[in-house]
Amino acid sequence: LKTVRTVIFAEGSFADDIHCKTGYGVLRYAPDTVVAVIDSQLAGRDAYEISRLGRGIPVVSDLTSALRFEPNRLLIGVAPAGGALPESWRQEILFALRKGLEVLNGLHTILSEDKEFVEAAETGGARIIDLRKEPDDLDVALCRAQRVEANVVLTVGTDCACGKMTTALEMLYEARRRGIPSDFCATGQTGIAIAGWGISVDHVLSDFTAGAAERLVLEAGADKNVKLILVEGQGALAQPVYSGVMLSLMHGSLPDNMILCHQANQQLVELVDRPMPPLAEHISLYEESMRIIKPAKVRAISLKTRGMDENEARRVIEETAIEAGLPVTDPVRFGSGVLLDAVLNDCPQKVPLSGEMAHIDLNPPF
Amino acid sequence: LKTVRTVIFAEGSFADDIHCKTGYGVLRYAPDTVVAVIDSQLAGRDAYEISRLGRGIPVVSDLTSALRFEPNRLLIGVAPAGGALPESWRQEILFALRKGLEVLNGLHTILSEDKEFVEAAETGGARIIDLRKEPDDLDVALCRAQRVEANVVLTVGTDCACGKMTTALEMLYEARRRGIPSDFCATGQTGIAIAGWGISVDHVLSDFTAGAAERLVLEAGADKNVKLILVEGQGALAQPVYSGVMLSLMHGSLPDNMILCHQANQQLVELVDRPMPPLAEHISLYEESMRIIKPAKVRAISLKTRGMDENEARRVIEETAIEAGLPVTDPVRFGSGVLLDAVLNDCPQKVPLSGEMAHIDLNPPF
Repeated sequence: LKTVRTVIFAEGSFADDIHCKTGYGVLRYAPDTVVAVIDSQLAGRDAYEISRLGRGIPVVSDLTSALRFEPNRLLIGVAPAGGALPESWRQEILFALRKGLEVLNGLHTILSEDKEFVEAAETGGARIIDLRKEPDDLDVALCRAQRVEANVVLTVGTDCACGKMTTALEMLYEARRRGIPSDFCATGQTGIAIAGWGISVDHVLSDFTAGAAERLVLEAGADKNVKLILVEGQGALAQPVYSGVMLSLMHGSLPDNMILCHQANQQLVELVDRPMPPLAEHISLYEESMRIIKPAKVRAISLKTRGMDENEARRVIEETAIEAGLPVTDPVRFGSGVLLDAVLNDCPQKVPLSGEMAHIDLNPPF
Repeated sequence: LKTVRTVIFAEGSFADDIHCKTGYGVLRYAPDTVVAVIDSQLAGRDAYEISRLGRGIPVVSDLTSALRFEPNRLLIGVAPAGGALPESWRQEILFALRKGLEVLNGLHTILSEDKEFVEAAETGGARIIDLRKEPDDLDVALCRAQRVEANVVLTVGTDCACGKMTTALEMLYEARRRGIPSDFCATGQTGIAIAGWGISVDHVLSDFTAGAAERLVLEAGADKNVKLILVEGQGALAQPVYSGVMLSLMHGSLPDNMILCHQANQQLVELVDRPMPPLAEHISLYEESMRIIKPAKVRAISLKTRGMDENEARRVIEETAIEAGLPVTDPVRFGSGVLLDAVLNDCPQKVPLSGEMAHIDLNPPF
């Protein structure tokens, strides 16, 4: 396997962890693959000074300066407002492709549908990987994920941006540290950039969203050694903007266990400004929505306590554990051992369905 | 307003009510707009002999024969396996466009993206209306439907094909018979062909499905005289293939009341062959899934008893009413008065949210 040597393109945005969340995600969870970060305003600094991530990785002014680190991949690690490609980035991306660098693109703009980028890729013998582009041959979900023997864990949430990807990745790495063969199913562009495969479900037709989740779980489960599959949730049942996406992921991936992710002390549901329901209501709705297809329980709560001091974080974790009657931790701050124990202890016995497993043409984006 | 004079194109399929369901839907709910049906194998017959619908409407062999009825619209009323355009239909559709007939197309193949069809339409001064094509400017749902003052009723179900469109249309016509100003929000191609407007939500990206439902309700509610809005549901929370679509419709349309549609005596959930859960479980899940956003109750059950004799139908309706503790009827067989009474009697007072209503650029397909 070729070693990945990524340059993160973060022009004008590396100081902004929201707009640059794909770049930050890769720096946090796959720092060994990163050789440089591009942001002309911050050139000469160490990535760690800006992001508290990626110690020793240099920030450079442009791709020409980054070439001395012999990169073979350019990751567009920043999402401009609206998600479309700013024209000022075009020349740098063309240059990367002509130099033979694989370009990972998380923008809404699909580079592989732009003639100029396609020609540049041909010139350089490079690949364009549009992280948001869905496979052409998606199908509907038909409860095939039930046939996977591994313990399937889905991270669900009380809202958007409450740590569903982070929790799944923290649990993945903790499981691997313990020697449990595990895999991660990425459902958003940042997760895909980190994992190197996945399907961005927000760009899938509504009929095929559950099918995309099913396919990811089947792909991960095709390796019979894998004992634990962590599926990245998207949206939330209580977030009306994205509730259908979450339910599709649930009914496509058919988890055995769920982890509920929650931003500590959040009072209002984002975007719609409704009062945040009590945790018990979220848990009940997740379990009931699964039960009508196959039973699965919320086994623990992953609490996002970022911005609190440690005492405050410990206090809110303790209070939440009492409120919910479940194990609770902040996996970023205190490790995900508590969460992993909860899903490993309670994993129900799988009952494989009868009949042959349908042939699935597995074809993840890369 | 121009009078619509539709020819239903049902070549080779008019005897098949499943493949021809869009044509049958229009014959059932908008027969006055139909002047002829094309099916060369059945030419010379009366539509009623074949379909038990559209008495007096002739079946003809081709469009040339239909021209004497002065049509101004060709509805492709048949869905071939796979949904793609059979090449053998191309000449007939081109002929229609060149003759100036508006073509309503429910196929997956988008005719307005095919150069030959576009040119023929230009030649004839005709319009192509692709029923499955989604608007370009869909947005996410943001609980704006709450601001509509009319009583919003969503037809939900225990599975696909259990009468959600039919129930909504039967209730619409019953409400209009009673003099209640009412509108219908079509979410599938047959409903759109009948209503003349709507959005086919199975061709919308998952992030925008709820937004599509929201937009339809806002469009219907923009007429302040409208007191009752019937929204056509799709899929079912207990049908894993389409559960996310249903939840999106619920959280986008924000119904005040729901009608549960069910095929009498159905034992297995279609496509996945799981045991059909008891009605109480469906009702509870629909109400809980709404409650976390805004409360809405299932007020009555629409039972599909097609194929039963009348005594059997009355018996199963009575049994279901006892089981569920709700009003029950088959609206096709016995009228939808019972269902309409249930949502009119129980309509909760709307509490409009504060603030100005956001500007919505309403732009239904036609």
